[in-house]
Amino acid sequence: MSDPNAVPPVTLNRLSIYLRCLRRLRDQGVRQVSSQQLAHRYRLSAAQIRKDLTQFGEFGIRGVGYEVDQLCDRLASVLGVDHTRSIVVVGMGNLGSALARHVGFNSESFAVVGGFDNDPKKVGSTVGHLAISHISELPTVVRETNAEIGVLTVPAPAAQHNYDALTAAGIKAVLNFAPVRLKLDPRVQTKNVDLSINLEELGFFLGQG
Amino acid sequence: MSDPNAVPPVTLNRLSIYLRCLRRLRDQGVRQVSSQQLAHRYRLSAAQIRKDLTQFGEFGIRGVGYEVDQLCDRLASVLGVDHTRSIVVVGMGNLGSALARHVGFNSESFAVVGGFDNDPKKVGSTVGHLAISHISELPTVVRETNAEIGVLTVPAPAAQHNYDALTAAGIKAVLNFAPVRLKLDPRVQTKNVDLSINLEELGFFLGQG
Repeated sequence: MSDPNAVPPVTLNRLSIYLRCLRRLRDQGVRQVSSQQLAHRYRLSAAQIRKDLTQFGEFGIRGVGYEVDQLCDRLASVLGVDHTRSIVVVGMGNLGSALARHVGFNSESFAVVGGFDNDPKKVGSTVGHLAISHISELPTVVRETNAEIGVLTVPAPAAQHNYDALTAAGIKAVLNFAPVRLKLDPRVQTKNVDLSINLEELGFFLGQG
Repeated sequence: MSDPNAVPPVTLNRLSIYLRCLRRLRDQGVRQVSSQQLAHRYRLSAAQIRKDLTQFGEFGIRGVGYEVDQLCDRLASVLGVDHTRSIVVVGMGNLGSALARHVGFNSESFAVVGGFDNDPKKVGSTVGHLAISHISELPTVVRETNAEIGVLTVPAPAAQHNYDALTAAGIKAVLNFAPVRLKLDPRVQTKNVDLSINLEELGFFLGQG
């Protein structure tokens, strides 16, 4: 898989889910698991698991399945989460504060190391164990912590200049929650997260009743 | 489309995006748009737009394109958002408060009509224009407001009993942000939202550097 862009996001999402399930099994002391067991336990599809893993050269042993430990390492490596990546959150309002404390943002793979705002009332206060710094501190903190990912949770009108501040500080990837189309830096991997799209999906299933 | 489950979520997400773009065009006074114009303006794929809309019986007129107004109504109807759906948020911590104020949760299609918590310090206070009620008020508020969607933003250990409270109150669809596998009510459409999956996708693109 020399070109990361060749793996569709839906496959990546499934691999993330497998990794999480496998880590949970590993923590429970499980050493081997078949695709059927994995599928049954976490309500996934066994055929899909086999197909996805085969793509990355992982073939379970017939009658035994996969080595849990080995598959965890392999998936973590494929997903680029074989070491902890540092995150900074820009915009410590409700959403930023929620994400800074979110368990998935502070896991084996990720750690929030900085929270930034321009509101003097917030600067110096803490969210969980995280002290909020003024946005002017961003370049220093990014350099000192080797933070790679920026989470952008500022209001829409403030999104572009804070995005630019993140990229100028050397951040390599941005998760943007602001509902705005940013002018992107081509050197930075940027993903827009639309929180209301899930709501619209539910709306569809509710029908027109 | 008699069976809503027959439309894959990725298609629904694209239809939601088309609808949002079309509503924006309509608000700007644009009456007709071709798939090429739509694609160019919002960085979408013209071929994909045509393919998606054809599925729902919408064929643009050659050289003219689609009637914006008509297509808005049609997509809103397909997506089940041709009237405003009421939402209640259970768990008014940071994430619940952020979602209760989120523009996408308070749009033409959705309105947050109730916020609930069991913390006496929060009950009676407000988030934006929304007063926080005690969770015991849930059945009354759901009945009085005809709320259809419940957003679950409580800590993981509290998720199941609050989910059960939502379904018992007559809520028809639940958006669950708690990182836990709920025992689901089969009569209720439930969607789990995993906020960290986007982070893992970025991790992958960053590679193993």
